[in-house]
This record gives sequence, structure tokens and C-alpha cells, in this order.
Amino acid sequence: MAISTSTYKGARDFYPSDKREQNYIFKVWRETVESFGYEEYDAPIIEPIELYLAKTSEEIVNEQTYSFQDRGGRQVTLRPEMTPTVSRMVAARRQELPLPLRWYSIPNLWRYERPQKGRLREHWQLNVDLFGVSGLEAEHEIIEVVSSIMQRFGANQDTYIIRINSRKLINDILRDYIKLDENQANSAIRLIDRQNKIEKDEFKQLVSEIAGDKTNDLLNIFSINNLNQLSSDLQEHQSVKELHQLLMMLARSGITNAVFDIGLMRGFDYYTDIVFEIFDTNPENSRALFGGGRYDGLVGLFGVEPIATIGFGMGDVTMKDFLLTHNLMPEQATGVDLEVILIGDVFLEAQDVIKSLRLKGLKVAVDHTKRKIDKQLKMADKAGYKYILFIGENELANNKYNLKELSTGQEQVVDEDEIVSIILK
Amino acid sequence: MAISTSTYKGARDFYPSDKREQNYIFKVWRETVESFGYEEYDAPIIEPIELYLAKTSEEIVNEQTYSFQDRGGRQVTLRPEMTPTVSRMVAARRQELPLPLRWYSIPNLWRYERPQKGRLREHWQLNVDLFGVSGLEAEHEIIEVVSSIMQRFGANQDTYIIRINSRKLINDILRDYIKLDENQANSAIRLIDRQNKIEKDEFKQLVSEIAGDKTNDLLNIFSINNLNQLSSDLQEHQSVKELHQLLMMLARSGITNAVFDIGLMRGFDYYTDIVFEIFDTNPENSRALFGGGRYDGLVGLFGVEPIATIGFGMGDVTMKDFLLTHNLMPEQATGVDLEVILIGDVFLEAQDVIKSLRLKGLKVAVDHTKRKIDKQLKMADKAGYKYILFIGENELANNKYNLKELSTGQEQVVDEDEIVSIILK
Repeated sequence: MAISTSTYKGARDFYPSDKREQNYIFKVWRETVESFGYEEYDAPIIEPIELYLAKTSEEIVNEQTYSFQDRGGRQVTLRPEMTPTVSRMVAARRQELPLPLRWYSIPNLWRYERPQKGRLREHWQLNVDLFGVSGLEAEHEIIEVVSSIMQRFGANQDTYIIRINSRKLINDILRDYIKLDENQANSAIRLIDRQNKIEKDEFKQLVSEIAGDKTNDLLNIFSINNLNQLSSDLQEHQSVKELHQLLMMLARSGITNAVFDIGLMRGFDYYTDIVFEIFDTNPENSRALFGGGRYDGLVGLFGVEPIATIGFGMGDVTMKDFLLTHNLMPEQATGVDLEVILIGDVFLEAQDVIKSLRLKGLKVAVDHTKRKIDKQLKMADKAGYKYILFIGENELANNKYNLKELSTGQEQVVDEDEIVSIILK
Repeated sequence: MAISTSTYKGARDFYPSDKREQNYIFKVWRETVESFGYEEYDAPIIEPIELYLAKTSEEIVNEQTYSFQDRGGRQVTLRPEMTPTVSRMVAARRQELPLPLRWYSIPNLWRYERPQKGRLREHWQLNVDLFGVSGLEAEHEIIEVVSSIMQRFGANQDTYIIRINSRKLINDILRDYIKLDENQANSAIRLIDRQNKIEKDEFKQLVSEIAGDKTNDLLNIFSINNLNQLSSDLQEHQSVKELHQLLMMLARSGITNAVFDIGLMRGFDYYTDIVFEIFDTNPENSRALFGGGRYDGLVGLFGVEPIATIGFGMGDVTMKDFLLTHNLMPEQATGVDLEVILIGDVFLEAQDVIKSLRLKGLKVAVDHTKRKIDKQLKMADKAGYKYILFIGENELANNKYNLKELSTGQEQVVDEDEIVSIILK
């Protein structure tokens, strides 16, 4: 029986045209983060499961990981996110690494989820982390990196919004102001995180189950949508002052689409302070595109001195959806500059000029199928090649070749240097 | 208890300095294969286990795969090699894809092996495949690609050797000439494949167990090291004629280190004709670096019309060992062009010039730690940064900045455009 050609469910094959689109996204990511001085790292896709037990969300660890036992009896996991890995790596060389560290990576991540728009089982995610800066300059920089990436993709600031909140503020509110105990506070955080997935009445009901007679206080404060609406007591809190300061710093750098969002939680347990998420403003793609935040405690879990850390992750699936929604994905033509069609039995004799064209920087394919010329031309057109170079005995004798542009059908007789200058121009 | 910082056994963390070396290898690979018109593809690291049952070697499938059941009950495997995947992808679009196809990928592959020099559990492998060319032009091109990669790395042809054999010739010899039956022939192929790992006497003994009274004939013919030593009967075989022809074609293209090796088998069951392996000539690293061959039957296993195919795989671990052995790994400096040290409280005011330097193409990090200047300088030096730019109130007022080259200690007062031209020069 024939073997199936199916791709594993929820994952993607990248044919060359797909890979060109993904490479375009990767290229913009790399160029932007490198312009901010970030350096690339990487790590194995397999990690021990313990790495995720402490701080990755329970839903991910218990229901969504690809976990198994290896042939040596170790319980391992395909990484569902990169943050625990990068924290592990920094912790392993805590003493040697010069701070601040600016690191990025574009790992593939695996989660066992129901595949749907914007969410697949395998995706690639740009991870950008800044270690060793405790001041708001770090938040400013990380959000500026995000904004610069969007700008480099050609996105206007009215096509997306940067929602910002503070885990410290949430703690201040829930514990000091509403006076919930730790368990109640954690339940409230989880509930508010799912707020948009729940009917309004049900949400109210669930809040009252957690907060009892403090339900109205809680509902009132979480209906606020401007920092200035917080009480004057809360305005004195460090967390609120920092949010004001950060929004001012961002505005000063021309980032006008950042707003305070008191309901923004982010699912991961490791965030300690400022968190943010980017939302598409187009109602057809109205979801969180990606986000990040400060997680000062994670490196310390490995038994070393903690490091102030902030970072974000940005996935290729949601990024591509955003670019398509806003018509920002440029057409990615094949990278092949030229295909050679040999006329007659000149394979050996044609090698020198072919090699020379490659050394001069051209990407040169050759049709070695020995099919009829018109069939070779048809296939070249289907492959998306722009130029064909015909090489036969006469051409080799005269060092002049027939160069055909497939889109126009135009042909010209040119020498090697002319070929190079026509194509690289 | 603190979480362990250990990397999964047999796999590697890539700190930025490690990643720069790997990226150098990837860059040379990409540039070379793209100059031959190859286009990049990719696919999920998870494949159904069935994909490997037909043609991957039994040792790999039974003892070395990372196989497990996913949460939906599917038996899956982390790919141990890319060839079945690329064959699957081509088969899935057999009718639409224009031939010839030139595809490459740099996937990470997983095998559960005892980690040792040149062999880890995870490695990245350049996979290069040419589909749709049945003539020796394909073999010539694929081996020319290999040779061009080595040349681009700076390797002389005397530092490695390209060993070439033909599975068809082996069949001609074992079945038609020595007259072994199919089982005996398969056992003999596997034995010869392991020849270098076995003592000479033991090898003789094992051969006699397979070949009986044909032992001497078999030992004699497999001691041949030149095509011309084959009998005149065999010289008439197509397989031998093609080997002569291929060696001539390679020599004509300046590839002088290709030799016939009758003992070369390659482990994989899918090879059908010419096979080749590249060996380091340095006795300290004397092992197969990588190899490939023709596997015309694999795409057809998916129930579509077969396609003539030839390809090779080249791993990053063995490649790096080779480069280090021959002193060919260039030092990979950090990609960061410049670090800014802020003097005083000028964060907001300094943003414009920093942003402008980035837009002009510089990779600019900023030390936001607010440590003392000499501590910031010390860390910058440790990070390997070459230039420091000091920005304070006076500098901003005059649009002139102090640029310090760390290696020489030399400082100069320059404006923005001068900074760019000094660093990008």
C-alpha cells in the first residue's frame, strides 16, 4: 500500500513559495532586532518536562505539551514556548555573561491544540529578551522593537494597538485595595484573563463567586479604561506612576497607539510587572497578535541570582494573518536569476560559462532533462524563472548567448558580462 | 529545589558565539546551493512513523528514532532524516510541480545515539535534492555542489576525498558475477558497509559465513581500488561505463579528488544507483563527513509516478569538526556595531540620534543599567563590542559625539554621518 503524503495535523509543509513568505517575515524580524543590538541564540527543541512545571501555565503543561519518555527513560517535552529555555541558558552562565544581554531566537514551538485560524500545532516564534535592565528603559526599548518591526512591515499605527498593563498594579488592586486573599486574587486574575471568552452575565456571576461582597468594587475598577480614572490612593502607587511614565516615554518616541488596559493579564504565571499585547484593529482579525512582559523572577528559579528581564514572543502564523489582512505581504518571486537551456550535446563545453556566471553572483539553474526546447521553456515559465539563457555550439564559439526574458518574450544576444549586468541591475 | 540548567543530553545550546559559527556554516551552504538555483523548503519536525518504515535503515527506525504517541493516539517520530519528508512533499504535488526541481533545506534531525565526536542526538543537516533528471548530469551537478561548498569554505581538494560507487554495480557483482541470492547479497552489502568497524580476520570469517565457496571471489573483487581492475566482462556493464563517464565529467570540471570506492555502500535502503561519500584526508578526523546518492524509487512509494532523484545531506557537526581540523573556521565577531553609553539623565533626548543611527544601518545597543561608566565600559569590552558612543547633554547640544574604539582606546569627536561612515567602512 502506498504511504500517505499527508502533513502532520496542525503543522505546515513549506513548499518553496511558502518558505519564501516565511523567510520574508524572518528577514524583517532579524533586521529589526539586530538593529537594536540583539544577538541570535538557539537551543534544542527537546527539554526535560521539569522546565515547564514551575511557571508555564497549567493548561499548556497538562493539556497541550508534546511530552514523552525517551529511550533512556527521561520525561521530555517539545518546547511549547522559549522563555523557560532562554532563562535556563542565562542561568547556566549567570556569572560569565556580561549584562545587559540582548538575545533573540526564532524557534519552532509545539502545542497540542485544535488547529484554527491563527493557531496551529507548530509555529515559529520570534523571541526577544533583554536581561539586566530593571528600569523602564527596558520596557520602552522592547515595545519600540515591536513598533519598529510593525513599521518595517509597512503597518500604520492605526492598524494595531499596543495594550499595556501592570501585574504589580493588579496585585495592588486585588490584594491591597479590594482586599482579596491570595487564592481569590489568583482566581480573579485567571477569570479576567478569560473575560472576552465569557458572556457578560456569566462573568458577573463568576466574579461574585470569587469576590462575594466585593463583587461590585471589583467590577467597577475593572471597567476603567484610562489610568487617570484610578483613585487618588492608587495614583500614589509605584505601579501606576510607572505606567504613566512608560506611556509618556513611548509617546515621546512617536509610539501613539499604546494604551492602558486594566483587563490585560497574559496567561503565563511568570510575569511580574509590566505586560503588553498587540491587537489588530481590523475587526476581521480582532485578536491578540502577540505580547510580552517583565519576568524578573524566572532566571532565579535555577538557583542563581535573579536578573531583571523583559521580553516578547511574536508568532509567524499570526504575523502572516496580519500581513494578509492588511495587504502587506509583498509577492516573493523565486530567487533563481536564470535558467540555462542547452542546445545540442554541449554539456561539458558549457560548464565554464555556467560556473563563471555563478561566481559573478548569479543564481543559475540548468535544465538537464533533455526534453524538447518548448517543453523546457514551458517548465521554466511554470517555475517562475524570469530569464532563459540558450547555450549551443555557436554561442560557445562566439562567447555570445541568446538571453530571453520570459515575461516579455524579448530576446537579446549578449556576452557574459552583459548577462550579469542585465540581471543584477 | 532549583530547576536544572542542563541541556538535553547529546544536544547543544547555542549561545550567541556558538550561533554565529553555525550561522556562518549555514550562510556558506545557502549561498552555494542558491547559486546553483536550489530553492528552500521546510516541513514539520513531526512525521508519522510509517514514513520511515519502508526505506530508512532498520537500525535507525528500531533503535534510534524519537517515537511517541501524540495526545490523539497517532504514532509519530521526530524526523531522523529529511529524505522521506521531501519525497512525501514532492509526491503530494507530483502533477503540479515543474521538473526539474532543485530543493534544499536545513532541518534539525534527531537520533537516539551515544553522543560522540562528530555525532550528536540533534544536528542540523543541509539537504540538497535534484528531482527529474535521470542522466549523469544530475550526479555531476550534485557532486559539483558539494565541491563548491568545500571550496567556499576555503578547503583545498587535498583535504578531502570524494568516494564514489554504484549500487547497480554492486548488484551486478553480487548477483550476476558472484551469483549470490538476494538474501546473501543483502547480508553482504550490510557487512561491507561495516567493513571498517571490523577486524580483518573477523571480516573474512563473516564473509565466508555468507558467501561459502564464493568467499575468495568476493574478497578479491572487493579489494579492487581502481575501476580499470574490474574484469572485461564487468567493463561492458552499464554501471561501470557510467562510473567511468562520471569520473571523466568531474575531472573536466576541475574536480580532481573524486575516486572509485567499491566498498562504499551508504546505509540507507533507498539508494538505487550512484552513491558517494566525502572523507576528511586528515588522519585525526578520518571519517565520512557526509554523502548522498541516487534514489529514483522513493517518490513512487507514495503511489505516484516515480521521479529520477539524487541528493545529499551534510551535517553541521561534522562540517564544523572539519573546519576546525583544517583551521578554516573564521572568527565570528559580534554583529553589534556600536554600544551607546548615556552620560547623565538624557534618555529621552538621546532617542532621536539613536533611532537615526539604526535607520542608517547601524546595529546599536544601549547600556541602560545606569552603572558607573567604567563598569559599563568593562561590560562592553567583555561583550566584544568594538565601538562605544558617549551621549550626554553637551554632545546632544552640539550634535558631536565621542566615539571610542575599544581595541585601541582611540577616541574621536564626530557627527552622526561620520559615525556611520567610520563604522560601515
